[in-house]
Amino acid sequence: MPRKYVYSFGEGAAEGRDDMKGLLGGKGAALAEMTNAGIPVPPGFTITTTACTLHRELGTIPAEVSRQIDEHLAVLEQRMNRTFGDADEPLLVSVRSGAKVSMPGMMDTVLNLGLNPEAVRGLAESSGDPRFALDAYRRFIMMYSDVVLGVERSRFEAVMSSARRKARKQTDSQLSAKQLEKVVTAFEKIVLDRTGEPFPRDPRVQLRGAIEAVFGSWDTERARRYRKLHDISDALGTACNVQAMVFGNRGERSATGVGFTRNPATGEREFYGEFLQNAQGEDVVAGIRTPRLLVELEAVLPEAYRELQDIALRLERHYGDMQDFEFTIEEGKLFMLQTRTGKRTGIAAVKVATDMVDEGLITREEAVIRVEPVQLLQLLHPVFDPAARAEHEVAAVGINASPGAACGRLVFTSDDAVAEAEAGNEVILVRHETSPDDIHGMNAAVGLLTVTGGMTSHAAVVGRQMGKPAVVGCESLRINAAREQLEVGGHTVERGDWLSIDGTTGEVILAEVGTMPSEVVQVVTGELDPAKSTIFAGFQRLLEWADLTRRLRVRANADTGPDAEVALALGAEGIGLARTEHMFFGADRMPKMQDMILARTEAERRKALRRLLPLQRRDFIALFKAMSGLPVTIRTLDPPLHEFLPNPTELKVEIEVMKATGKSKGQRKADYEARLAELEAIYERVLSITEINPMLGWRGCRLTILVPEIIEMQARALFEAAAKCISNGVSVDPEIMIPLVGDVGELRRQREVVERVAKEVEAKLGVHVNYKIGTMIELPRAAVTADKIAEQAEFFSFGTNDLTQTTFGFSRDDAGKFLGRYVDEGILPRNPFVSIDREGVGELMRIAVSKGRAARQGIKIGICGEHGGDPQSVGFCHDLGLDYVSCSPYRIPVARLAAAQAVLHERGVEELRTRARRNLRYKTPPTYHDTALGHDA
Amino acid sequence: MPRKYVYSFGEGAAEGRDDMKGLLGGKGAALAEMTNAGIPVPPGFTITTTACTLHRELGTIPAEVSRQIDEHLAVLEQRMNRTFGDADEPLLVSVRSGAKVSMPGMMDTVLNLGLNPEAVRGLAESSGDPRFALDAYRRFIMMYSDVVLGVERSRFEAVMSSARRKARKQTDSQLSAKQLEKVVTAFEKIVLDRTGEPFPRDPRVQLRGAIEAVFGSWDTERARRYRKLHDISDALGTACNVQAMVFGNRGERSATGVGFTRNPATGEREFYGEFLQNAQGEDVVAGIRTPRLLVELEAVLPEAYRELQDIALRLERHYGDMQDFEFTIEEGKLFMLQTRTGKRTGIAAVKVATDMVDEGLITREEAVIRVEPVQLLQLLHPVFDPAARAEHEVAAVGINASPGAACGRLVFTSDDAVAEAEAGNEVILVRHETSPDDIHGMNAAVGLLTVTGGMTSHAAVVGRQMGKPAVVGCESLRINAAREQLEVGGHTVERGDWLSIDGTTGEVILAEVGTMPSEVVQVVTGELDPAKSTIFAGFQRLLEWADLTRRLRVRANADTGPDAEVALALGAEGIGLARTEHMFFGADRMPKMQDMILARTEAERRKALRRLLPLQRRDFIALFKAMSGLPVTIRTLDPPLHEFLPNPTELKVEIEVMKATGKSKGQRKADYEARLAELEAIYERVLSITEINPMLGWRGCRLTILVPEIIEMQARALFEAAAKCISNGVSVDPEIMIPLVGDVGELRRQREVVERVAKEVEAKLGVHVNYKIGTMIELPRAAVTADKIAEQAEFFSFGTNDLTQTTFGFSRDDAGKFLGRYVDEGILPRNPFVSIDREGVGELMRIAVSKGRAARQGIKIGICGEHGGDPQSVGFCHDLGLDYVSCSPYRIPVARLAAAQAVLHERGVEELRTRARRNLRYKTPPTYHDTALGHDA
Repeated sequence: MPRKYVYSFGEGAAEGRDDMKGLLGGKGAALAEMTNAGIPVPPGFTITTTACTLHRELGTIPAEVSRQIDEHLAVLEQRMNRTFGDADEPLLVSVRSGAKVSMPGMMDTVLNLGLNPEAVRGLAESSGDPRFALDAYRRFIMMYSDVVLGVERSRFEAVMSSARRKARKQTDSQLSAKQLEKVVTAFEKIVLDRTGEPFPRDPRVQLRGAIEAVFGSWDTERARRYRKLHDISDALGTACNVQAMVFGNRGERSATGVGFTRNPATGEREFYGEFLQNAQGEDVVAGIRTPRLLVELEAVLPEAYRELQDIALRLERHYGDMQDFEFTIEEGKLFMLQTRTGKRTGIAAVKVATDMVDEGLITREEAVIRVEPVQLLQLLHPVFDPAARAEHEVAAVGINASPGAACGRLVFTSDDAVAEAEAGNEVILVRHETSPDDIHGMNAAVGLLTVTGGMTSHAAVVGRQMGKPAVVGCESLRINAAREQLEVGGHTVERGDWLSIDGTTGEVILAEVGTMPSEVVQVVTGELDPAKSTIFAGFQRLLEWADLTRRLRVRANADTGPDAEVALALGAEGIGLARTEHMFFGADRMPKMQDMILARTEAERRKALRRLLPLQRRDFIALFKAMSGLPVTIRTLDPPLHEFLPNPTELKVEIEVMKATGKSKGQRKADYEARLAELEAIYERVLSITEINPMLGWRGCRLTILVPEIIEMQARALFEAAAKCISNGVSVDPEIMIPLVGDVGELRRQREVVERVAKEVEAKLGVHVNYKIGTMIELPRAAVTADKIAEQAEFFSFGTNDLTQTTFGFSRDDAGKFLGRYVDEGILPRNPFVSIDREGVGELMRIAVSKGRAARQGIKIGICGEHGGDPQSVGFCHDLGLDYVSCSPYRIPVARLAAAQAVLHERGVEELRTRARRNLRYKTPPTYHDTALGHDA
Repeated sequence: MPRKYVYSFGEGAAEGRDDMKGLLGGKGAALAEMTNAGIPVPPGFTITTTACTLHRELGTIPAEVSRQIDEHLAVLEQRMNRTFGDADEPLLVSVRSGAKVSMPGMMDTVLNLGLNPEAVRGLAESSGDPRFALDAYRRFIMMYSDVVLGVERSRFEAVMSSARRKARKQTDSQLSAKQLEKVVTAFEKIVLDRTGEPFPRDPRVQLRGAIEAVFGSWDTERARRYRKLHDISDALGTACNVQAMVFGNRGERSATGVGFTRNPATGEREFYGEFLQNAQGEDVVAGIRTPRLLVELEAVLPEAYRELQDIALRLERHYGDMQDFEFTIEEGKLFMLQTRTGKRTGIAAVKVATDMVDEGLITREEAVIRVEPVQLLQLLHPVFDPAARAEHEVAAVGINASPGAACGRLVFTSDDAVAEAEAGNEVILVRHETSPDDIHGMNAAVGLLTVTGGMTSHAAVVGRQMGKPAVVGCESLRINAAREQLEVGGHTVERGDWLSIDGTTGEVILAEVGTMPSEVVQVVTGELDPAKSTIFAGFQRLLEWADLTRRLRVRANADTGPDAEVALALGAEGIGLARTEHMFFGADRMPKMQDMILARTEAERRKALRRLLPLQRRDFIALFKAMSGLPVTIRTLDPPLHEFLPNPTELKVEIEVMKATGKSKGQRKADYEARLAELEAIYERVLSITEINPMLGWRGCRLTILVPEIIEMQARALFEAAAKCISNGVSVDPEIMIPLVGDVGELRRQREVVERVAKEVEAKLGVHVNYKIGTMIELPRAAVTADKIAEQAEFFSFGTNDLTQTTFGFSRDDAGKFLGRYVDEGILPRNPFVSIDREGVGELMRIAVSKGRAARQGIKIGICGEHGGDPQSVGFCHDLGLDYVSCSPYRIPVARLAAAQAVLHERGVEELRTRARRNLRYKTPPTYHDTALGHDA
């Protein structure tokens, strides 16, 4: 028996089902499901994605598929009691694409297919409405020519507007039959002119063309781009739905519209949508006429409205989720054309999920799986004050690299950023691109904007690390460094002017737009009473349910007391990474750090370190207090030293310019020479520290092994801080983490120093501190020798940023040149700095976990790279059996939810889905007036 | 029964054997072996290395060990018929260290132990020579005080020279008994003054002190440093030999000396050594008296001489290797004190091994295992003309980073190097340290000298890669860049002065010292008739034997026709790595390469590439011709682009200085502005290409995937060259190697381009070329996904330089800051850039081999990193089951030998050793007049 390529639906029965989305596409499966449920759906049939794949491979529709299409077309003609191309009772169909995953607006549709001059006459007679028939025909010619024949839509639109002008009418629907006849003639001429062929009259030829166009639309550039962006496989293909036409443009008792079972922006339980009377579906989308709110349909067509509301509620109950549906009312009779899971904002997602639990519609676990983890970020990042935002236009849109809104004065250099910040001004740092030399400026700025770079550029990565809004790769900007000006699409702003960016959307506004913390953050920081927030309770409940489900612990990457407090309020169960070097980027500390680095003797260095110690101790006390008793993982100094030093090129330029110009500006010779000597000394020292590949240089434990004074100071500050907390009744659980270990010998050395200092502090202060020593696993060598390293480590934390860099041999700072194109061109499926590369980096992690656990049973293993807040990566960490993930504070809710979803995926999502489908044919449908619909059994 | 800690030897029988070196040390085992063989050895006993280990752990000699020492001392007294400390017939002993592996000069010895005032009297009487007794005593006090009591030797030497002055004598042996008595009194006073205790009189106390000192000498700083340098385990410990004294200073019929069974410099079969009449062993070493050649002993003490020669030949025959022995003749009677394998030069090693095969003493396989592979380099690198060399003194000694001698004019910058080279001058480039910016200068220079950096510094690595002599880390140099002067220990030389360096020894000479190719190289390059070389035949034969044994193939890293020819002559079986980028560093090509890189459009770039194509094609033809039919692996462009561009800091300085000084030097304004604009444009472009971590940046296939014009040009040049060769009857076997692949998708892309070009060239020229496409495995991700990559690769070549960098996260250019200290301080056992890190990098290689072979049976796997010429790494590659190693041409003999040794080690070296021990008690000893000693059974 040949394979089945076509599935019919109609007359209350369908060959397909909802769980056949892979074969029938989302739309086809939904049409089948609704048909089987007795919901009024115009009959038709679905050509499978398998047929699409065959078409892609062969370049044509195979004979067997054609045969089955003909067979089902015959059934459809019978059901509709109309004949394709018939002069009296012509069958008209719509041809629509429908992939497994919704790709809104990406693919093609043809309506009114089957019309030709004879059929138009038949339709005019059978409908008694020649104007309607002609209008349907001109729409068909236009769509078909656009979609199938490739004739530009604008040519047809020009004819229409000329016709309107001639007839002095405002809208197309005001054109008379006579005027439309002329339009059709003009349309046919356009097709002949552009294609060299007359418009096809044979409905079967039309149908074949439309099906091929639908299949072909899977492979358009924009569809491919969309799939890449949304991580949808190119191999899926689309199904094609051929369905009898129903008309919402058959007069005032006809209408067409779209609706949601709840408000997709807020999640409120209300019947939400839009409709147009006497119109076809495309009119709603086209925006020529302004649609009316769906609730107003009750006054216009009360019976159809009630039936629609009833069906909508049944659909929501059936699918157990908010639905987005399309309908047409033809002369008072309602037809459903589509239903699918409705897209919604983060706020709505949380509200719908928690409400549905209260309504007994879904379980708490289902609620947990319903919300996309990253959607929670929408509830957390600063937002523009909506009123202020509305007053300004967007000057440019870049890549939304680090979320949140920010507003400040424009500066072009990191030094300016620091100077302005010290003067008390908030600044947006605008750079062509940032580099490690900009760290101090990035730290001083409230937001970052760059002309080049992608999601993995330096600005993006550091922005996310620092929790600063960042828009990168905003290529329409032009920086004129000499004049300190920024040009954007005709506008020019200068240093010191106001600038606002929204890192959540990528928007750049050349004005001061006030920002405010999100409602959830206001609650979390105690600025808003939770009772006064409409969204906080749902957010909190959903995450509590997630916490009941998840196995992975969630910690925060936080370097300061305030960060730690926010993290705790957002559910952190400890700190997984406190970067001690971040404590030194502050303007008050940088000079002390520079003294330490530029010290020429150990004695000088120890002196500088003694001045840093109290600052570091204070930082640690703040962290311990904030986390009272929860584990706090403190990483010893990590970055290359030159990150704290001036740029050598700038120094060299200053020196050479001084030399070339001499002491020309009336300067005293002695002053001049002293200054020159000083500069040259600093330059030599900076140069001796500058590295060719700083990422692979003298940093992390390599530095603190050979200059042990540094780690000694850090350990002393830590143990003194811990002792002080204990003395004050604050319990502490410090974990000391050594970075960049590649060999167990390195860790052994560092452990010796830390243990010695611990004993010294205990002897001095008389307070015993319990602590653990562990290491980052961030080098391939650490991963493959994890068994040896585990002998000296009480915990591992994967530093997947560095591990990704070394495993791929990609510098995060430089990969912008090629990584974006690698992903665009499909060489890599996704950016490995955003989501863990399971095949390579993940394999090394797997080796490390297995060797580490074999050598030390129960060794605690976590992750503290940026991936710790990426839902896919969190899922991978769960699968690997890690103990915890650690991420930036605002990512904590994301990680909590993702960790719970990982458990649910492990248990099988399909099982949940199956359980959700149950009450379709229930007798008494719920109404929008019910406040709760009963509780789950 | 207690463990045995002491082993006796004497009276023709010993408790030990030669195969107990681990327990008895080399000396102890040799003394036992000789004793058992009936060779005259003064009796004594050996305290084991196990006792040493106990002493190190406990800080004292355990009671059981003391008990056994006493027991054996009693046996010794009995054998010698003398008593320890006896006033009439005192027993005197020597106490000598002796580890498993010889550590010449590193450890301590005490002679004449057992003397005190009473015993001196007894000795004077029994010997009838009071002067001899007193001389023995003063020697003993001096040695014992130095070694055991820690009193400075110089204080005693001062007394001796003052005594000589007073007595107006030239030598110590001319001092009378009376004068020596005063010396002894003065010595005893020194000991009392310095230690607060009288010199110990009890021989048992003396003995215990000496044994503890010998054991303690294992842990001195210099001994530890020596072991680190020679890769000897600290855990071994030393044995301690206590042996009855025999005296070479009992008059004119007494003598002492050292000898070799063959000439250790040339390997000639001659009785070679030195002796002193009427002297103790230390006198030979001390150099106060000039020793006489051993052959002269025949005239002095003919019987002892003949016996010595006979014993020496028996020892060589017994051990099957050249021996280095010590002897003493006491009043005409010969005693052997030590025998061990003699150290020798590379030339001698080859000659001895091949001669011994001819003599039937060892097998060919034994010969192969006898020569240290790196010793062969001594036969290959350029050498100073010996006559010229003798005329100059060495001004400084640095680290011998890249072997060979070189002589040229001194330059301080890479630009100067290029300019001078273009003017036809040979130059030595002297830099504080080199960086990738110096590549063009390094290429232009004949030798490299740097002030800082170690074996893995940039200069060292690139020097070895380029085959240029390099001396690095020569810290006594001072560069005065401003004056273009170099200061070395008081001397100052200037730019343009002559300078000579020997990268084999690290010597720097401030003069023109002529160099010449080594004899072997002269033969290989056809400059010398092999028959006229004394060493070539042995070299050739040894390597032929190695070739019969080895399984690994050996290929060369060679980029040019001449290099390939040398490689072939040295035994290369193909080219494993031709670096196409090296072809562009030439002065004539660099500008074309720069045009290509700075091109702003694809059209411009293609134009520049068209000019490079014929050059590249010519290079390939030369390679193919040189290797006629052997495989030639050509790697497509690898390094970061900025290696071909000017230094951005220098550009920036030039621009800013121009700006600051304006058009002050009478330049026309238009010229000034045009030049400034040009510089700024170049600077911007260079800056946009400059990377923060070039090692991890946009290079290798990442570059040629996104700019496919480059690899297209290279593939076209390659296939056109191959086609041309084939047309001319030269057979070719090209292998195209894609660098820096991390994901199979990259390789797939590059394969598509290469295959397309291959077809285009075939269509155009009508010649079919067979070729393979493969990849480097030089990233951890490539190693762990080798199964996937193997689907697209017909061969793998491990790029262990980069793989080491990424696995450790060490930049080779920057690791100098810490790697030396890591090795010095024992954090890493050895430099992983010199010898493959088996635990980490090796584990990734193992994974790659296993996954690669599983996915593609029989996939060819080799290595082309610098490790390919390191004997230890070659051994590892053999163990891993690779198919070939590839290394620089002069390393090919090293790799051939190391590959053969790997097979022999696999079969068990000990087995060979055992087979070698056989003919000790043969009746008719061989003589130095036999030309051949019969053939092996």
